[in-house]
This record gives sequence, structure tokens and C-alpha cells, in this order.
Amino acid sequence: MHELLKRFYAGDRRALARVITLIENEMPERDEILKELYFKTGKAYIIGVTGSPGAGKSSLVDQLIKMIRSRGETVGVIAVDPTSPFTGGALLGDRIRMQEHSLDRDVFIRSMGTRGSLGGLSRTTKDVVKMIDAFGKDWVIVETVGVGQAELDIMHIADTTIVVLTPGAGDSIQAIKAGIMEIADVFAINKCDLPGADRVAAEVETMLELKGQKDGWVPPVVPVSTVTCDGLDNLLQSIVRHGDYLKQNGAFEDSRKKRSRSEALNIVNHQWQSLVRKHLNGPGYINDILLNVTEKKMDPYTAADIIMEWIISKHVTEGGIA
Amino acid sequence: MHELLKRFYAGDRRALARVITLIENEMPERDEILKELYFKTGKAYIIGVTGSPGAGKSSLVDQLIKMIRSRGETVGVIAVDPTSPFTGGALLGDRIRMQEHSLDRDVFIRSMGTRGSLGGLSRTTKDVVKMIDAFGKDWVIVETVGVGQAELDIMHIADTTIVVLTPGAGDSIQAIKAGIMEIADVFAINKCDLPGADRVAAEVETMLELKGQKDGWVPPVVPVSTVTCDGLDNLLQSIVRHGDYLKQNGAFEDSRKKRSRSEALNIVNHQWQSLVRKHLNGPGYINDILLNVTEKKMDPYTAADIIMEWIISKHVTEGGIA
Repeated sequence: MHELLKRFYAGDRRALARVITLIENEMPERDEILKELYFKTGKAYIIGVTGSPGAGKSSLVDQLIKMIRSRGETVGVIAVDPTSPFTGGALLGDRIRMQEHSLDRDVFIRSMGTRGSLGGLSRTTKDVVKMIDAFGKDWVIVETVGVGQAELDIMHIADTTIVVLTPGAGDSIQAIKAGIMEIADVFAINKCDLPGADRVAAEVETMLELKGQKDGWVPPVVPVSTVTCDGLDNLLQSIVRHGDYLKQNGAFEDSRKKRSRSEALNIVNHQWQSLVRKHLNGPGYINDILLNVTEKKMDPYTAADIIMEWIISKHVTEGGIA
Repeated sequence: MHELLKRFYAGDRRALARVITLIENEMPERDEILKELYFKTGKAYIIGVTGSPGAGKSSLVDQLIKMIRSRGETVGVIAVDPTSPFTGGALLGDRIRMQEHSLDRDVFIRSMGTRGSLGGLSRTTKDVVKMIDAFGKDWVIVETVGVGQAELDIMHIADTTIVVLTPGAGDSIQAIKAGIMEIADVFAINKCDLPGADRVAAEVETMLELKGQKDGWVPPVVPVSTVTCDGLDNLLQSIVRHGDYLKQNGAFEDSRKKRSRSEALNIVNHQWQSLVRKHLNGPGYINDILLNVTEKKMDPYTAADIIMEWIISKHVTEGGIA
């Protein structure tokens, strides 16, 4: 552990990969690592990229990596693949294009499933963002496929959220329906070399006018093409402008504070749930109470009160958290 | 309250509507009502209907209502509208077609938002299902739009989940991506009068063959058309067959028991979170600890341990749940 962290602090990429694996697999070292590295977090600028399958997010992230590197800055990428809640297997695994960066030691790329969180971003994803941040990367890009909760969760992680739309696919209408209009700090209208891109951009602009501003920031609508490379500079500039805006009005610091705060509270709830789960294993008092509920001898509200009091008194008599 | 429940038990539809409103608005009477009516639940057969926007779910539900009524049975419908997590307003509100049933006192229809649960089915939705069940309806149909979490949550509520697909829209591919293939007990290939329906049906059949059975049940793929009324009988028969299957192998009883059990445990977690929230209001010890975290003087794990112990000891000295 000590040796691993020493290598981590020395900038060894394999140590970062190893730390992430320990966290993903919930190994015993996990909490200790997260505790220690927490104090190193908070410096990286975090970009979220979301949009429908086929919107060209990976190619766009690819171009962002190149532009960030040409500024002499370092970057880590987390590509979140949608995972079936049942099979546990990632369905999209095509990260091959990104491998062109694999020889660049200032680019770190990791693919992750969403397992365990039914389509949302898992706690692990958030922890991995922190590890890349603690490792010292200037930027962290989190790419999520826009099917469900993950695309809504991204705004709680990212400083700047980019929503990628494309012409043709009825994307702008989809965007309102899933509520993702509200999460965008920047709209990238990808495949702007294709017909219909102007119309999508215009539709989004109209909706933004109807909705008004988001905390004083009007999300720019940036046409881009990863084929012709049009608009890519403009996209990065929009991100940087949004970052400057957040830093100037204090929102950048604020959101970091809010994230740490809600993280601590999430851990409190998580601990509580572990405590409940501990008492559920095997036969015992709680299971007897629950049996009364399933047999309709007791309502679940009364049962919940009894269970809660029992867990708390048990916890106190057993001398608190181990 | 007593008067309201008397009217509820007497089958007064307005009493049911009133009870649901009390629950939706989290009025003080809420817990008492849920406690009392819990003992009346568990009889209704619950159908979930999900699919992409525009798949024709509402028309299909409309036809299901007619068929159920022609069997002399009663039905309640909950139409869950996707709600923006920000505006709180329902975006799809077009339940007008269903109003043809509004004079039939054995049909109860209610539209609900998904507010507060970021795209998933709210606890309130589950409670409303129970109220319609307790009211004595033979069937409850829950219709959700397939954008995100709600379509995955439906399987935890419904006895039979119908996934509605349509030709043309690349629906079957979407279905795998969002993981909704796994939640279907019955596939309805709607708009089967349109070209391409056969292909969608064949694709789904192929995928089902590749995946194998779901607990021994092979989800039937039923082409239907709400325009020509083809296949509708077949659809209802498939639902009934699935219900018989669940009842024969004990899964029907089992899932009801599991639902009550997990409901009680959810209430335990909810109570705990209320306890935490109570101590977060205004300045105080927990907020001081959290300040240490946001200022990076303490890691969130250590903070969580301290907060948990403090809340528990406070709860004990204050004499437990009020």
C-alpha cells in the first residue's frame, strides 16, 4: 500500500491503474486510499460529454485530447459504457480509436461499466474521477452514453457538461424529453458537415431563448465536425470560457465544496445501509419483523420504526462502528 | 380522515382521488393512510407498459382498458409523464384520448410526474399503485415513457411488463442498449400494419433465442395494431398466460412478499435520511464537521464515521423516534 502510493505520487501510470482497479473491485485497501488521496483532489478541471449513441462522442473526446495535449496540458478520460443491469457486461467496448494515445504518458484512458447503479453513474465512477485528479492530470473528461440516468448524473460531477447533438436523428426533441437540455453548459452540434446541422443548432438556440439563462450563463451552441475538424477550437474555447465564468463568480469553488459535503453525507447513508444489511444476513430479529410484514400481520411503517430502533440500540450496545 | 376512508371503502372514486392527492402532496395524513390501507393491498394484477416516445403506448393502454372492461373486470391506470428534474412540470400531458373512459366508474385514470426521482419511478408512484389496488381494482396498468430509469424501475412494480416496440425507429437496437430487453415479459410490436414490423419481430425473436429464457419464461413477441385492432386479443392472452405462469410457480406470491420486504427496508433508510436531514438544518455540530471536509482539513470517510456516531447518540439521548 505504502509502496503503491509512493509510485502513485511519483507519477507512475501503472500505479494509477492499480489504484483504480483496487477501487473498482472494492478491495480492503479502498477506503484507506480514498482517505489519503482525498487531500490531493480538487485541482483538475472536469468535463462531462454526453449524447445519444452514435452522436460521435468518442471521436469528439479524441479531438479534445489532442487539443489539450497541444496546450502542453495532461488529461485523463473515463469512458462510461452502458451496462445491462442483468448481465453485468459492457455492451459498447469499442475504445480502439483511443489507443492512438496509448503511447502518450500524459494521457490516461479508462473504460468503465455502470454496473450496480442501474444506468446511473456509480459511486466508483466518482471515485475514479478523484483518483485521476489526485494523480495530477490537468483535465478529466468523463464520457457517458445518453441512455438514462448517467447523462443526468454527469452534471453533478463535471464543471462543464457538453451535450452532443447531431442532425437527422430528431436529437433536439429527444434532448428536451430526457431533460438533458437543462444539464448542458455547452452544446456541440456534431457532424456539422452533414445537412440539417444548421436546423438542429437553430432549434436549440430557440429553446434556449425560450428557457432563459442558466445561472447567468447562456450555453453556447457550437457546430463541430470531427471529420473536417471545423469548430473544434471554438468548442475548447467555449469550455475554457465557461470555466473562467465559474471561477469568476465563485461557482467553481462552491461546486467543489458542495461535492465534498454531499460525498460525506452519502458515505453516512452508505454506512447506515451497511449496518442494516449486516443485520439482515441470516435469520434474526429484523427478518422476523419483515416476515410479519410479508404476511400482512404488520404494516411496513410500523415495522420500519421497530427495525430502526432495534438497529440503533444494537449498534450502541455493541460499541459503535468497528 | 375516518370519513374519507369510509367513503374509500364504500368504493367512492372521489375518495380514491383524494387519497392519492394527499399522498402526492405528502400531507400529514399520508403515513396513516398508507399504514391502514396496506392491509388491503396485494390483490390487483399489475401490468407495466413501457417503450419509446411515439411507440403508441397510450393507444395500446386504451385498448387494454376496453378488453379488461369487456371481461367485466375493473381497472386503474397510472400514466407516468417524464418530468424535467428542473422545472418540475410534466412535458407530455396528452391524456385526452383516455377521457372516453371517464364516464365509466370502473375505470380510474391518473396522470403523474416523476418529480423528485430524476427520471425514475418515484416512491409516490408505487404508493399510488397500492392505493388503486387497495381500492379493489382487478387490474392496475402503469404506463411509463421509455426515457431512462422509469422503464427499468417498472419491472419492480409490475407483475407483467410489456415493452412496446415499433418498426422503423431502430427500436430493437435501442432496446438492447438501454437494457430494456431484459425487463420484458411480453413484447408488443405495435403498428404491425406498417412495413418493417415483421423485421422488428424477427430481430427480437433472434435476440431472445441468443439470450435464452428468463426464469423459464420465454417472452412472447406479439404483433399488434391499435388501428386495425389486430393482435390485441393475443396480447391480453399473453398477459394472462404470464400471470398464470407466475401463479403456478409461486413467483406471484414471492414477488409480492419481496416488494413488501424491500418497502419496509426502504422506509428504514428513508427514516434514517430524515434524521440526518433534521440535524443538517441550520448551524450545528454536523455542519462544523462538514466544513472541515470542504476545507480539506478532514477526509469525508472520517467525517462520515463521526457524523454517524453523533446522530445515533443524539437519537438515543433524545429518546428515539418521536
